[in-house]
Amino acid sequence: MIERTAAPPRTHELNALFARVRRTTEALCRPLRQEDYVVQSMPDASPTKWHLAHTSWFFETFVLRPGLPRYPVFEERFALLFNSYYHAAGERHPRPERGLLSRPTVEEVFAYRAHVDHWMGALLAGEHGALGGELAFAIELGLNHEEQHQELLLTDVKHMLALNPLEPAYRERGPAPCAATKLPSERWASFEGGLIEVGAADSVVGAASFAFDNERPRHRRFVPPFELARAPVTCGEYLEFVEVGGYLRAEHWLSDGWDARARLGWEAPLYWKRDGLKRDGSGWRILTLNGARELDPAEPVSHVSFYEADAYARWQGARLPLEEEWEHAATGEEPVGNLLDSDLLHPASCARVGRRLEQVFGDVWEWTASPYTPYPGFQPFQGTLGEYNGKWMSSRWVLRGGSCATPARHIRASYRNFFGPEARWQFTGLRLARAPR
Amino acid sequence: MIERTAAPPRTHELNALFARVRRTTEALCRPLRQEDYVVQSMPDASPTKWHLAHTSWFFETFVLRPGLPRYPVFEERFALLFNSYYHAAGERHPRPERGLLSRPTVEEVFAYRAHVDHWMGALLAGEHGALGGELAFAIELGLNHEEQHQELLLTDVKHMLALNPLEPAYRERGPAPCAATKLPSERWASFEGGLIEVGAADSVVGAASFAFDNERPRHRRFVPPFELARAPVTCGEYLEFVEVGGYLRAEHWLSDGWDARARLGWEAPLYWKRDGLKRDGSGWRILTLNGARELDPAEPVSHVSFYEADAYARWQGARLPLEEEWEHAATGEEPVGNLLDSDLLHPASCARVGRRLEQVFGDVWEWTASPYTPYPGFQPFQGTLGEYNGKWMSSRWVLRGGSCATPARHIRASYRNFFGPEARWQFTGLRLARAPR
Amino acid sequence: MIERTAAPPRTHELNALFARVRRTTEALCRPLRQEDYVVQSMPDASPTKWHLAHTSWFFETFVLRPGLPRYPVFEERFALLFNSYYHAAGERHPRPERGLLSRPTVEEVFAYRAHVDHWMGALLAGEHGALGGELAFAIELGLNHEEQHQELLLTDVKHMLALNPLEPAYRERGPAPCAATKLPSERWASFEGGLIEVGAADSVVGAASFAFDNERPRHRRFVPPFELARAPVTCGEYLEFVEVGGYLRAEHWLSDGWDARARLGWEAPLYWKRDGLKRDGSGWRILTLNGARELDPAEPVSHVSFYEADAYARWQGARLPLEEEWEHAATGEEPVGNLLDSDLLHPASCARVGRRLEQVFGDVWEWTASPYTPYPGFQPFQGTLGEYNGKWMSSRWVLRGGSCATPARHIRASYRNFFGPEARWQFTGLRLARAPR
Amino acid sequence: MIERTAAPPRTHELNALFARVRRTTEALCRPLRQEDYVVQSMPDASPTKWHLAHTSWFFETFVLRPGLPRYPVFEERFALLFNSYYHAAGERHPRPERGLLSRPTVEEVFAYRAHVDHWMGALLAGEHGALGGELAFAIELGLNHEEQHQELLLTDVKHMLALNPLEPAYRERGPAPCAATKLPSERWASFEGGLIEVGAADSVVGAASFAFDNERPRHRRFVPPFELARAPVTCGEYLEFVEVGGYLRAEHWLSDGWDARARLGWEAPLYWKRDGLKRDGSGWRILTLNGARELDPAEPVSHVSFYEADAYARWQGARLPLEEEWEHAATGEEPVGNLLDSDLLHPASCARVGRRLEQVFGDVWEWTASPYTPYPGFQPFQGTLGEYNGKWMSSRWVLRGGSCATPARHIRASYRNFFGPEARWQFTGLRLARAPR
Repeated sequence: MIERTAAPPRTHELNALFARVRRTTEALCRPLRQEDYVVQSMPDASPTKWHLAHTSWFFETFVLRPGLPRYPVFEERFALLFNSYYHAAGERHPRPERGLLSRPTVEEVFAYRAHVDHWMGALLAGEHGALGGELAFAIELGLNHEEQHQELLLTDVKHMLALNPLEPAYRERGPAPCAATKLPSERWASFEGGLIEVGAADSVVGAASFAFDNERPRHRRFVPPFELARAPVTCGEYLEFVEVGGYLRAEHWLSDGWDARARLGWEAPLYWKRDGLKRDGSGWRILTLNGARELDPAEPVSHVSFYEADAYARWQGARLPLEEEWEHAATGEEPVGNLLDSDLLHPASCARVGRRLEQVFGDVWEWTASPYTPYPGFQPFQGTLGEYNGKWMSSRWVLRGGSCATPARHIRASYRNFFGPEARWQFTGLRLARAPR
Repeated sequence: MIERTAAPPRTHELNALFARVRRTTEALCRPLRQEDYVVQSMPDASPTKWHLAHTSWFFETFVLRPGLPRYPVFEERFALLFNSYYHAAGERHPRPERGLLSRPTVEEVFAYRAHVDHWMGALLAGEHGALGGELAFAIELGLNHEEQHQELLLTDVKHMLALNPLEPAYRERGPAPCAATKLPSERWASFEGGLIEVGAADSVVGAASFAFDNERPRHRRFVPPFELARAPVTCGEYLEFVEVGGYLRAEHWLSDGWDARARLGWEAPLYWKRDGLKRDGSGWRILTLNGARELDPAEPVSHVSFYEADAYARWQGARLPLEEEWEHAATGEEPVGNLLDSDLLHPASCARVGRRLEQVFGDVWEWTASPYTPYPGFQPFQGTLGEYNGKWMSSRWVLRGGSCATPARHIRASYRNFFGPEARWQFTGLRLARAPR
Repeated sequence: MIERTAAPPRTHELNALFARVRRTTEALCRPLRQEDYVVQSMPDASPTKWHLAHTSWFFETFVLRPGLPRYPVFEERFALLFNSYYHAAGERHPRPERGLLSRPTVEEVFAYRAHVDHWMGALLAGEHGALGGELAFAIELGLNHEEQHQELLLTDVKHMLALNPLEPAYRERGPAPCAATKLPSERWASFEGGLIEVGAADSVVGAASFAFDNERPRHRRFVPPFELARAPVTCGEYLEFVEVGGYLRAEHWLSDGWDARARLGWEAPLYWKRDGLKRDGSGWRILTLNGARELDPAEPVSHVSFYEADAYARWQGARLPLEEEWEHAATGEEPVGNLLDSDLLHPASCARVGRRLEQVFGDVWEWTASPYTPYPGFQPFQGTLGEYNGKWMSSRWVLRGGSCATPARHIRASYRNFFGPEARWQFTGLRLARAPR
Repeated sequence: MIERTAAPPRTHELNALFARVRRTTEALCRPLRQEDYVVQSMPDASPTKWHLAHTSWFFETFVLRPGLPRYPVFEERFALLFNSYYHAAGERHPRPERGLLSRPTVEEVFAYRAHVDHWMGALLAGEHGALGGELAFAIELGLNHEEQHQELLLTDVKHMLALNPLEPAYRERGPAPCAATKLPSERWASFEGGLIEVGAADSVVGAASFAFDNERPRHRRFVPPFELARAPVTCGEYLEFVEVGGYLRAEHWLSDGWDARARLGWEAPLYWKRDGLKRDGSGWRILTLNGARELDPAEPVSHVSFYEADAYARWQGARLPLEEEWEHAATGEEPVGNLLDSDLLHPASCARVGRRLEQVFGDVWEWTASPYTPYPGFQPFQGTLGEYNGKWMSSRWVLRGGSCATPARHIRASYRNFFGPEARWQFTGLRLARAPR
């Protein structure tokens, strides 16, 4: 994987990687009907065809236009439609109105992708000369960007389909066959803390691996001893919180969370449906990308907001981990797990394999107690791309570890994802932390 | 046409009519791309596929379910999705969320139509016995209902495409060839008024023609002498109001209209675009179903709200006509004009042919000064269908005469259309009235 | 009373009248605490001190400034604060923010009133010459305007106090002593209708009585025979509607009314409180200006919106009267009743005295089925005062007859009050109408 | 001052302190007119009479009810009205509606205060036995609580008066006489950082000084070397940012800040008025508690939001300090300055006296770059009072140092104030930080 090589990728490696990432995005669309590409289910989500076009616009804007003087722009007016949030790149169509656009059609969007791929192929084949470092960086960034949109595409489709009373599935597929698993006998793993280092190693010529600007610079933090739960909180554990009235008692909640709960009508995680309740109190249903089914108590709970994760932890007499605690602990774990490449597209109940910390990477993004702020000495990317991460550093929380919809190539211990405290449509769960007892 | 026959339609006539109306709806969809069927541009509008399904649901609910005991319901859950506003017919999916549903797909919706058409065909072919009067009425109502949705389908598509910065056209077609026309030399036609009769004649067995419940009963009104403008207000005339600052002077406007203007940012009729302005002040562009083009000063102004129509009239020292004045005057005119059947899909600048009143039927719906209230002795349709018209009789205004998107079969002098005073997405214009001078 | 004199008021009569009306306004404030003058309970209501200042601003702006060249303006900046809605009179402080202004203080507002009264006194004493017709008209209008604000002052105070969990009373006073009354044995009075006349007689020099522009011109209407209920609907009758679930069945309601009911949480008339319910189902409490007490089933129901009045009438198989029916019937009744001058400040259960129509004037404003529109040939007042009535002629309904908070001098058969269909904070009730059976 | 004694206050000391704090609150009301006590200018602010009552309710609820068995509650219904946000203490009147209550009157509120003071006096005089530790703590907390409301009372009054077009002053007073001052010749002070300690020392029996729960526990942090500006940013410096278009360039702003700026119409700090602009570009006016006057470029800028402070710092190529940096640096400074006790009620331009860091305490609260989160090992106060600080630990930022409206007794180096990133009505400014160059 590119971020683990000891040298910058040679052009033909980048070419293969480019083709692979772009193909993956399109493969994710295969189960969709034409109509599914069009709908925007809420302002935070985007239509599938917007994702397809926006990721192409990214390469067009930051690679082809600056890098290929004779590049023929596919359609000048797409710049307005498919710029997400880069002020320095010009005007933007309003985000909440992306679902009002029936055109360009899906067919036209795929033609746009093909056009961009064609010229990117030419560039990467070296037809236009050697690739400068700046362009190579923009391409690597564009691929990481597209991987992020692969995850968003799936979670946006899931959200859209879930609003439909017909409860259509993204695809029909049974649960993965799964050997019986047990919770770890020891619930907690201990860490000594101390003056630790966090963050991605600095980019050095000839030895750099990719990391986002927000993961740098690597720096020291002082961390007192702490314990982390060996496994993420499961649906069964979270269900108990729901059933004892956890959503009805203000004392567990942050004040803003309590208000959000009331305003947004939260009574359980997103996609939990009560209508299937049986007499014995069981029978919660859950909507998944693979269709609706009964809630599985053994799988990690997902689609909870920061406020719910925080309230659950407080109810348990515990807390969420700080991002430096999480990173310090995760650094010892192998970055493998139930990721997009597993093609389960849902957190797995059978992923435990006897490690010190289970399900660290993949399954669910884990909310941390850390607001998303710059590391000391933070330097945004140069130019327009400086808007990529830095300007979101307020009112968001850091999540760590990736989910079942994150490409395996994309995740690492230092990776900082971030969402607002009310967001629930990503695969977001939690792992408890506490002081040593 | 059915409302002009001296006897109720025989079954085979109804059969042919049914087929014709249903085909017309589908023909209107032909220029659309798959993606165009999905989008809802605002709460007042609906996606095309919703119109296609809802009109089928109407026949299924009010004809096939009660009339054909063995009718196999296509999909029970469609009742929730495609009931518009009939409380007595059960729960309804929220109107503003119609654009969030990618499923059923367009293909499935056409299959639904075919299913309903098949069983309606069987019913109308007499395979299941003679058609009772109640069912015949429901079918006639269903056809009138579908004709209303033909107009809405077009105006909703127009609104949706107009929101798109790419400015796609519904279809590409040049303006109709048109001989030079002149404004009538006399601007005003005089009417004596007196104790007149308005409303559709009562339905009598063996001699009824269709009319909505809100057009009945026929009754007397006292009307002082009045004058009506011989032609609707044109774009050229309205442009003058725009250019002298009519939208900036509170004295022309009703108070609620003045506020609506500010809140909604009105500076000209809907679909007028200023960006094409030339140095000499001309150059307004207008978006039409046939594409964007220069404003034609000779065509009737359209897509103005009641408030704009009212303000224009006051600025002119005139007023809007009362609906009884309009009906009284229109009764003497032949109900022909630039209607849906002309296939222009835009108000025509060359429709004047030397009548006393020009362009009475077709081209643009004409706002009246009459709030939409029940006629004395009003009786709503029986049962669930009583919700068709009666419950909307507040905060709406009556419009008369039909537009270029109204089926010719559908319009008559007594026809009462109604919209809220802020609505602009229909083909709505105005004709001035005044007291004799 | 001035509108009944055969000649325009002589100056000294106007002087006495002016003093009386102004004193009445101030007397209404006597029960208030200083703090009560400041609060604005909703955008439709105004703080008491705003009413006191605004009515003074009216005389300053429309009488003293144009009529008294040497009039020293009390405070130029008050023009901004106390202009209600006259665009032609300059900028206005936003209506919903009237309760954000602690200054001018109550004391300063009374000083402003005294200043205006002083100069009005000088003008009316003839110190500055004879009073021209235009000024005399503006004064008469200003007095009618102030009488309207007397009613608003009381209803606004009632609304504000009712929001307070402490349930303070405007004043403590027991119910009026009252002989036992019976409902009329005949519920309905019949009217023949025909070609009738409505509206105030035209103003003629030397013989004019005051009427608002919206009451003119007098004109003919054709009215079929109709019946009116002899008495307004009582609380006991309305309670039945509440208790059989009238607020839970869509079929009684206009569509907009049904939505308003849900949005605004209506379950009974405003100021009805369920918390006092006894086991036997009785025990509704009602908040009045004289304090909270048990609901009296014999008193006319009040504080219902147009939508509730309309729904009640439909549930009863009846309808609301048209304003021309009401005026035609009321013309035969003496304009006396439970008005502000009675000082009950609440609809009375013992006001029936054996007339053909009971409680026509006073007690409660009666909603009509008539949207508020201009009479044929309507001419607004000249100049800025033309904004007084005309610009409100959309989305409002006509009410007739005055209430227990309307000054006796102020009401007449032709008087047209108007409010939006959701307004409930006025003393608004209803009287049923129907076609003859 | 109490937090500096080596032993818990003896009862008679607490008695004197109690009387002093309560008197101070009332003294702040002296310039107010009766009407000023009633108005609530926005949901974040409260009417003065609410502050007066709420601080009394605090003592009644947390001291008198639990501590004095025979305490006669003044008015049971006040519990509903004057509970701010303690879920565990019962129902609460909605915060945004505090300005809708004219009652209790100001007089009644002062009577309530006197009643509480009387019984507190009895308690503190030892008439009811010795004071237990828990009660002593609740009293000390109540006094700190009341000091916080002294500051809020002033900032809320300032906000309310500033909304009034008459621009009333809280009091009329000229600026403090002030010797000429100069900016420090060295702009930056350097700090070595390292593994430092922050937070208030733990409470130890017999040696505790008061600190809020959110200041504890004292703990270690690793801090790289940093520099702090020797003085807060001045109005003159900030004006430059305004005048070069700092509010019009997205690149300086966090994304949420940029949106807040547009939504809330920010073009300069709160209370800056452009209307006095002179031809030479000078002439900004500023509203202060002492009346409106010209902007003084030498005084610290105040009434900026976190987003504005952050944008200014980025524009300067600097950043806001972390709270641990601020506390570390401030620990070396004497906690004196322009605080409430100075009675200037405005940031001073002449407070610089040659210290290493100027104006650290007082003048303006300084925004830090630190979101408000719990310290490692944070323990909220026991019981209902646990809601005091902990539940606000999301979406707020830490401010340090106190302002010209903070009581001198109340501030210390470890004190953590917190507000949302859009708050501007407190005396909030900033001091720049940066890495050593």
